[in-house]
Amino acid sequence: MSPRILIFGTGSIGAVYTYVLCRATKPVNVFTVCRSNYDVVSKQGLTLNSTIFGQNLNVRPQVVRTVDEAVAASEGKPFDYVIVTAKAIASTPSIPDQLRPAVSESTTIALIQNGIGIEDIYRSAFPSNPILSCVVYLPATQVRPGTVEHREVELLHIGTYPSTAPSAHKDSADKLAALLHAGGASAEVHDDIQQSRWSKLLVNAAWNPICALSRSRDMQFLQSSPYALDLVKGVMLEIAAVAQASGYPSISSEVVDFQISRATARPLPGVEPSMLADAAAGRNMEVDAIVGNPLRIAEAKGVDTPLLKTVYALLSGLDGSFTRARQSRG
Amino acid sequence: MSPRILIFGTGSIGAVYTYVLCRATKPVNVFTVCRSNYDVVSKQGLTLNSTIFGQNLNVRPQVVRTVDEAVAASEGKPFDYVIVTAKAIASTPSIPDQLRPAVSESTTIALIQNGIGIEDIYRSAFPSNPILSCVVYLPATQVRPGTVEHREVELLHIGTYPSTAPSAHKDSADKLAALLHAGGASAEVHDDIQQSRWSKLLVNAAWNPICALSRSRDMQFLQSSPYALDLVKGVMLEIAAVAQASGYPSISSEVVDFQISRATARPLPGVEPSMLADAAAGRNMEVDAIVGNPLRIAEAKGVDTPLLKTVYALLSGLDGSFTRARQSRG
Repeated sequence: MSPRILIFGTGSIGAVYTYVLCRATKPVNVFTVCRSNYDVVSKQGLTLNSTIFGQNLNVRPQVVRTVDEAVAASEGKPFDYVIVTAKAIASTPSIPDQLRPAVSESTTIALIQNGIGIEDIYRSAFPSNPILSCVVYLPATQVRPGTVEHREVELLHIGTYPSTAPSAHKDSADKLAALLHAGGASAEVHDDIQQSRWSKLLVNAAWNPICALSRSRDMQFLQSSPYALDLVKGVMLEIAAVAQASGYPSISSEVVDFQISRATARPLPGVEPSMLADAAAGRNMEVDAIVGNPLRIAEAKGVDTPLLKTVYALLSGLDGSFTRARQSRG
Repeated sequence: MSPRILIFGTGSIGAVYTYVLCRATKPVNVFTVCRSNYDVVSKQGLTLNSTIFGQNLNVRPQVVRTVDEAVAASEGKPFDYVIVTAKAIASTPSIPDQLRPAVSESTTIALIQNGIGIEDIYRSAFPSNPILSCVVYLPATQVRPGTVEHREVELLHIGTYPSTAPSAHKDSADKLAALLHAGGASAEVHDDIQQSRWSKLLVNAAWNPICALSRSRDMQFLQSSPYALDLVKGVMLEIAAVAQASGYPSISSEVVDFQISRATARPLPGVEPSMLADAAAGRNMEVDAIVGNPLRIAEAKGVDTPLLKTVYALLSGLDGSFTRARQSRG
């Protein structure tokens, strides 16, 4: 039987995996929760222009506004997978609370979200379901509602949360990887996904807040003052120290040097991290998932992270300014 | 004979001193260079609403667009004072180059500008003229072109640059103070004005960049995260260390504690530093005068200032984003 899948948060990443999973199973079994882009996607489906998958690809999943609508449309049939591709920011109600009507005993919850420490709220809400923690490398942008541009890279790292989860949870990870492969995508299952999370965080925790605060793409920032490179590298080294203290010695200063060499080789204006796009649009940013949680882990483990503290304080202030602006718009 | 005065940069501070000096001498002798507000001020003069000087006060100085226009309107009569109330940011041509036509042998140049190390470009351009370095406490806002609101505090600290300047320069400082007193304002002459500059910088170098980067007023920032207060205090302590290394031991951690206690006693939303107003409007900020120059002094003196470096790097990036946005608007 074809698996039934609910995708929560149909931004650029959600749209690409909706496309992949519509190919792997039937579009009638793939439900996407669309919020800001509901009107367009419910009428025209999702359109993907990809250097890997192809141009002008269109799929028509079951488009809903809420999880409750998905449950109603599913007519009592349970979801095998709930895939969370929404941003990892606090909401009311929380994402786990929103997902609850769609989660049965046999549902696997896969989190394709950035940051560290983002799994606990799902683990608490669904203590016996398989929770899969995923790290995605997929440069994609929703250029207008329902249309996504994607280029160059496509890879999903998958692992259970926690890494010591029962073998049945590991089987769920393998099955999800097989499903993605069937849809033409790349996926790798890891025994301990947290190493991949720290590896991606090393880059994200430096570039995202620095670019958001300076309103600059990565190369623009590097060229803005003689102190720029040291700041980026310094934040990465602090993240590496926290990762090492957390049991991931491979997240080392050599990795930092490699990531710095990648960035400095780029042409101007460089890459726009997601947090810069959020800041430019006045949207709340993944402050705690990407900066606050590693900072709290650092404090618990006695690792000194003065740059991360500074960046977190400034970024929290900036994020608060977006909340105030939204509230004053009413 | 009444002194002839040129005021360069008629924002809120320039407007208040234009009002004071029009009272001290004749408005026909006071020339104000108005750029963005020329149309209004040339027709309606300057209007001041002040809790100290009074409400709905109007003065009509000689309003010009450029220094050359002022020189032409002055009909060959030299200026006794050129008072710079423009922001301390790099321009092409530089402010000293713009002032040159108005500066004769007997002209005193008074700089009412924020920051540290802002005097050198004037000293180099006019090596024998009296250069007066001034620190102003004057909460004033130009609420619309030509109309300024002012409240609570009004004080100008004046001193020669350098402090070892000839006694004739000191006499110029005394004469300017007397002129301001005649106009109803407060002014104090100091033997070494740099102490006053460091004292004000301690506050400015912390709050200005932090509020600009976080898009928050001071109290809003303090409430945004548990790390906020430590950041503000940390930057102030670094400035105090640089001031001490520069020979100003009175700029101490006790002063930092006093300034922190002042800020934390304020009600929400708190004060909007000038750099926050500039950032909100996408205007270039006094990055080097307020943050870059103390950082370079710290490096020359071997004082470690990691927070100042971080703030400078982010602020330089942000300032560059404003330059790019202006250029792309054409």
